[in-house]
Amino acid sequence: MKRTIYDEDHEAFRQSVKEFLDREVVPHLEEHLSAKGLPRELWLAAGKAGLHGLHVPEQYGGAEAGDYRFVAVLTEELAKVNMTLPSCFGIHGDIVAPYLVELTTDEQKQRWLPGFCSGEIVTAIGMTEPSGGSDLAALKTTAVRDGDDWVLNGSKTFITNGYSADLVVIAARTSPEKKAKGITLFGVETDKPGFSRGRKLDKVGQEESDTAELFMEDVRVSSADVIGEVDQGFIHMMTWLPQERLGSAVTNLAHARQILDETLAYTKERKAFGQPVGAFQHNKFLLADLFTRVEVTQAYVDQCVLAHNDGDLTAIDAAKAKWWTAQVQNDVLDHCVQLHGGYGFMNEYRVARAWRDARVTKIWAGSNEIMKELIGRDLGL
Amino acid sequence: MKRTIYDEDHEAFRQSVKEFLDREVVPHLEEHLSAKGLPRELWLAAGKAGLHGLHVPEQYGGAEAGDYRFVAVLTEELAKVNMTLPSCFGIHGDIVAPYLVELTTDEQKQRWLPGFCSGEIVTAIGMTEPSGGSDLAALKTTAVRDGDDWVLNGSKTFITNGYSADLVVIAARTSPEKKAKGITLFGVETDKPGFSRGRKLDKVGQEESDTAELFMEDVRVSSADVIGEVDQGFIHMMTWLPQERLGSAVTNLAHARQILDETLAYTKERKAFGQPVGAFQHNKFLLADLFTRVEVTQAYVDQCVLAHNDGDLTAIDAAKAKWWTAQVQNDVLDHCVQLHGGYGFMNEYRVARAWRDARVTKIWAGSNEIMKELIGRDLGL
Amino acid sequence: MKRTIYDEDHEAFRQSVKEFLDREVVPHLEEHLSAKGLPRELWLAAGKAGLHGLHVPEQYGGAEAGDYRFVAVLTEELAKVNMTLPSCFGIHGDIVAPYLVELTTDEQKQRWLPGFCSGEIVTAIGMTEPSGGSDLAALKTTAVRDGDDWVLNGSKTFITNGYSADLVVIAARTSPEKKAKGITLFGVETDKPGFSRGRKLDKVGQEESDTAELFMEDVRVSSADVIGEVDQGFIHMMTWLPQERLGSAVTNLAHARQILDETLAYTKERKAFGQPVGAFQHNKFLLADLFTRVEVTQAYVDQCVLAHNDGDLTAIDAAKAKWWTAQVQNDVLDHCVQLHGGYGFMNEYRVARAWRDARVTKIWAGSNEIMKELIGRDLGL
Amino acid sequence: MKRTIYDEDHEAFRQSVKEFLDREVVPHLEEHLSAKGLPRELWLAAGKAGLHGLHVPEQYGGAEAGDYRFVAVLTEELAKVNMTLPSCFGIHGDIVAPYLVELTTDEQKQRWLPGFCSGEIVTAIGMTEPSGGSDLAALKTTAVRDGDDWVLNGSKTFITNGYSADLVVIAARTSPEKKAKGITLFGVETDKPGFSRGRKLDKVGQEESDTAELFMEDVRVSSADVIGEVDQGFIHMMTWLPQERLGSAVTNLAHARQILDETLAYTKERKAFGQPVGAFQHNKFLLADLFTRVEVTQAYVDQCVLAHNDGDLTAIDAAKAKWWTAQVQNDVLDHCVQLHGGYGFMNEYRVARAWRDARVTKIWAGSNEIMKELIGRDLGL
Repeated sequence: MKRTIYDEDHEAFRQSVKEFLDREVVPHLEEHLSAKGLPRELWLAAGKAGLHGLHVPEQYGGAEAGDYRFVAVLTEELAKVNMTLPSCFGIHGDIVAPYLVELTTDEQKQRWLPGFCSGEIVTAIGMTEPSGGSDLAALKTTAVRDGDDWVLNGSKTFITNGYSADLVVIAARTSPEKKAKGITLFGVETDKPGFSRGRKLDKVGQEESDTAELFMEDVRVSSADVIGEVDQGFIHMMTWLPQERLGSAVTNLAHARQILDETLAYTKERKAFGQPVGAFQHNKFLLADLFTRVEVTQAYVDQCVLAHNDGDLTAIDAAKAKWWTAQVQNDVLDHCVQLHGGYGFMNEYRVARAWRDARVTKIWAGSNEIMKELIGRDLGL
Repeated sequence: MKRTIYDEDHEAFRQSVKEFLDREVVPHLEEHLSAKGLPRELWLAAGKAGLHGLHVPEQYGGAEAGDYRFVAVLTEELAKVNMTLPSCFGIHGDIVAPYLVELTTDEQKQRWLPGFCSGEIVTAIGMTEPSGGSDLAALKTTAVRDGDDWVLNGSKTFITNGYSADLVVIAARTSPEKKAKGITLFGVETDKPGFSRGRKLDKVGQEESDTAELFMEDVRVSSADVIGEVDQGFIHMMTWLPQERLGSAVTNLAHARQILDETLAYTKERKAFGQPVGAFQHNKFLLADLFTRVEVTQAYVDQCVLAHNDGDLTAIDAAKAKWWTAQVQNDVLDHCVQLHGGYGFMNEYRVARAWRDARVTKIWAGSNEIMKELIGRDLGL
Repeated sequence: MKRTIYDEDHEAFRQSVKEFLDREVVPHLEEHLSAKGLPRELWLAAGKAGLHGLHVPEQYGGAEAGDYRFVAVLTEELAKVNMTLPSCFGIHGDIVAPYLVELTTDEQKQRWLPGFCSGEIVTAIGMTEPSGGSDLAALKTTAVRDGDDWVLNGSKTFITNGYSADLVVIAARTSPEKKAKGITLFGVETDKPGFSRGRKLDKVGQEESDTAELFMEDVRVSSADVIGEVDQGFIHMMTWLPQERLGSAVTNLAHARQILDETLAYTKERKAFGQPVGAFQHNKFLLADLFTRVEVTQAYVDQCVLAHNDGDLTAIDAAKAKWWTAQVQNDVLDHCVQLHGGYGFMNEYRVARAWRDARVTKIWAGSNEIMKELIGRDLGL
Repeated sequence: MKRTIYDEDHEAFRQSVKEFLDREVVPHLEEHLSAKGLPRELWLAAGKAGLHGLHVPEQYGGAEAGDYRFVAVLTEELAKVNMTLPSCFGIHGDIVAPYLVELTTDEQKQRWLPGFCSGEIVTAIGMTEPSGGSDLAALKTTAVRDGDDWVLNGSKTFITNGYSADLVVIAARTSPEKKAKGITLFGVETDKPGFSRGRKLDKVGQEESDTAELFMEDVRVSSADVIGEVDQGFIHMMTWLPQERLGSAVTNLAHARQILDETLAYTKERKAFGQPVGAFQHNKFLLADLFTRVEVTQAYVDQCVLAHNDGDLTAIDAAKAKWWTAQVQNDVLDHCVQLHGGYGFMNEYRVARAWRDARVTKIWAGSNEIMKELIGRDLGL
């Protein structure tokens, strides 16, 4: 099914993103893997190419696109390369961005946004804690008032960009008695005394992303580092859930599509018992099934993109997009591995890494189970 | 996810269809069941309400809507009542219509279309044969030239409206050596000598539809009864495949949605172990899953409707819509039965009939396997 | 995989059951369907053939087999004919039997068992109520002491053999404050004043079984009609759960196997596009899958049969057998319908009825969800 | 369900295997991972513990167990540690063993079996080729007669133990025109000139197994290195298919069971939203489902073990065991990852590695698709 949501401007932007990726990224993928992280040069190059600041006003160096379709195009092209790029760049340019753009003071904008756009300030978001998972009401990191300062203690885990981040948006409890309503967001610059990081986590996939644990021991920040309103962190975080989930959905699906396309090509070339493996009826039907699933899902994701542009995308509809695309992605990729036979188990084949990389999408940023819980509640159950 | 394809005119038409159904159909559903067929009065009433002629020019009594969304609205509303209405009315008003409108001579139009629109001429389409299933190349019914006439012999099966039809579009082999390319379509009026019908078939579901076998023994028709070009029947039939499949898809999904909505309501009311059965986490997650599947699928079907309006819907994209919606429908309904507990096995509950009625959608009009075969070929496999 | 649990004696018994069924049952299946019930002559003939009394001591006319494998053989052969026979005969000869044999007084044995064995007394079990489903703690039927009598009020639903039963084991609340612990079983002879039955329920499948609602309005029974101990009904019912669930499992699997065998044969005969439909790779793989599932499951069910013979079958292991076989059965039969193409939707094909008949096995006698709840608890969750 | 196939002797053997593993293996797992291979000391220690020679006559240093249940016990205990151990040791002690024991001359036995049992001669089997996958008829490695010698040329891939093997059973084409019937097996000692190995393959999982490509360039072996009959290699390989597949099945299931047990424990300890994650109904039902699947499957595998002991296990019944257990294993492990939340994506958690390790079982040694093809043929399709 031909997609209809993009026009010439989007496709021109896509072309420029592609050229950037072919030139600056694709030749270095092995290096990212062995470094277990994206090099700063890449962040800077992407900044130069204008990829970080799509949500940021022009006066701070951004593109202020004002049309989520440009973000979707960027996300899709990143996801075609691998899962790590849209994860790392997405956390920065799509998930952290609204906090820094919509909730910040002029001083904060001046301090952070130019570096954010140039890639000199890499960002992360610190919500998840070792004991807590998706349960924000159980948040244990504390921020205690001390004069005009706040003193933060606690730890965060599974933080994408955690090892390289210069600035982390940290959710901390400021009013212990108020549960979810007593949380405040802080922009914590990572050179602050008391801030430290654990080793890069050894993950099943996305090894080129520097996921880390973060530790704060009496980290002192000032009032000028509060992002948004004190005690309103939970509400702030809720605000951009639709966009966060939509970003995940766009990533999940574009990633699966790309590998599926490559798998189709593989099954046409690879022969067994005298014919292309894709020509065996079992495989043919399977591929027909997988392409159908992907295209059906694309229609929904595209509808979400348009709805988001119109300000109509609800957190629940985005939750549907997030969990469903994660499921489709994982199912598609598992079949793609199988269609590669023994080569599907070899890391040198893209499908193998893709399969491992994708496993986390059913878990992170609100697991499929959490999404279903939220959707169920919305149904009145 | 809010749907966006309909505007006020479509919703006004929907309202009028609803009123018609509430008044003329819903009170008589039990009668349709025991009669194993829709009464002629219903066909006539629907004709009066303008429901048969959406594809037919005004001069012949139709509405000439020129916008498939009106057909989709009608189909959805019929499907909310049950599967039989969109099947029987859809065969007539959506599947047979293009043959009678696009391929016919003026004389044929005059002869058939006014009655077609009023419901005085009920139509059916006769392709499937007892031995052949989906394999048109194996078509055995023959039409042999005899002067200016043609003499038809053969039998057809699984013919929806077969028992009540006044006019059947019959596919017959006119050039035996040419396989699929040697088929011609005939408009066979069912009062012709030699035309007979078997009993109404005893089906798993959709008992209120008069599915029948048709027999032709030396049925003599004239050249004036040929629809379209001689030997071009296969190509004619291919022409409207996208619309046929789209009609199925719209039906399948609207039917599943309606029963899912009713099931949600049921699970809120029905209590077990002291709480609504829908509040049990297993059921809550399941319902969240089912609603997600339905809404994701709706996005694709809606996209197909718009594409069809633009003349861009391919037979392959429509094949994806057909098989996928059939799968979703059947899966959703099976879960809906389960959510009703023992009552799901009782015919007095709508969900029970819906489950049985829907079973055929994975089979008829090209089974899911046939759809996958076609999609696979389109992928180059 | 060759089964190993049966020896010559069991196979000889199987042969005699088969002959009985071929002679007395198979020629009359259509009559059972149109009567929506099994005729009394069939119950009597089966009694004569010794099929009702496998659990009953010889002195009362039974066979006292003392080896559940004979019951399993009988159940399998009944299930090969259809689902209704093992349901109706199983309720009587396998589920009610232990109550009447193990919990009864000599007087009760004398009164009930000879007729039970001969088929003159058809039995049913009345636990489920319209409002309650699987929740025995919510049981609403009451039995109130009145001198030496008990007066019963309430209603039961989904009662297999309910319309024809002469004796129903009724679970009634005798101590309202004690929840599940205040239930007593009564042998209620159905000619008692105040006992009445609703119409035969109109079911999705198993139409030849006379499922009914039962109503009790001041039905007076005597102390001599109490089965087992007063207030111990719940514990009594728990006692035979392993056997009840095992009987379901044996039925479910034997039924699916038989239809799968017939479907395999069909797919070898039926041709499409010039070859047997079973030879298409998709279908071939599917059949390979289904046979694997059935044989794997058979190994477990057979192990349960042997464990039950040794008194080692737990209610939980039997719960696993019950839900799993129900799932396998339903999945297998749905695919078998699909493999029949359009004929799978026609009631004249055994597969069509089998598919409908089987739908209830995931629901009745403790739904698959209830089974999982119990298994989950047993896991310590 | 309590398993019944093992008696005291088997359990005593299990205990001794466990002690060996706890002492010699478990403390060194990280070393195996970083070495990407099992150290020779481990092979020697296992030899000392008598684990390699269960199929080998006592006179050559083996245990000549004569009862496959001992092999099954060993395999299960290895699989409880990880997938690599039963893979590497299984190739040697269970898959290569019969070739060296049943097809060899006395001289060969003398030459190879003592070292085989002691672990001084590690073995591998070389069938699969880069271009061929499961298609033996397409085998390209050649062995050409040259006097009393044979000269081998070709390459093999995906060879477990390939990097460390001292002796490889190589399948080579000796009669080009005879397709599958022109294959001969050779015992190729890996210090022969012309024999070389590629790097260890970089796999998705089982990193501690030294899978490699093997290259033969004019490798000269003598007639004394032919294993079995010239041109009978295919038939020889068919002979032990039941045992090979059974070994896979035992491994797959034991591996899944172990991780499932550990996951159950994890879900009881790990809390979210104030309760153990396993207590959420969705997870509880899921765990109930997974345990059921595992136990049902165990019954079948156990039946296969007994049948194999009796010489009754067919290659087809073993094919059912192989693919089904691979499917169950992969499904179970995917759910186990999900039940671990974010930790399931971290390699330090056993479940993460287990999930990756297991992915290949649906592919290797005859993929699930190949197994279904064979089963389908056996059904007459």
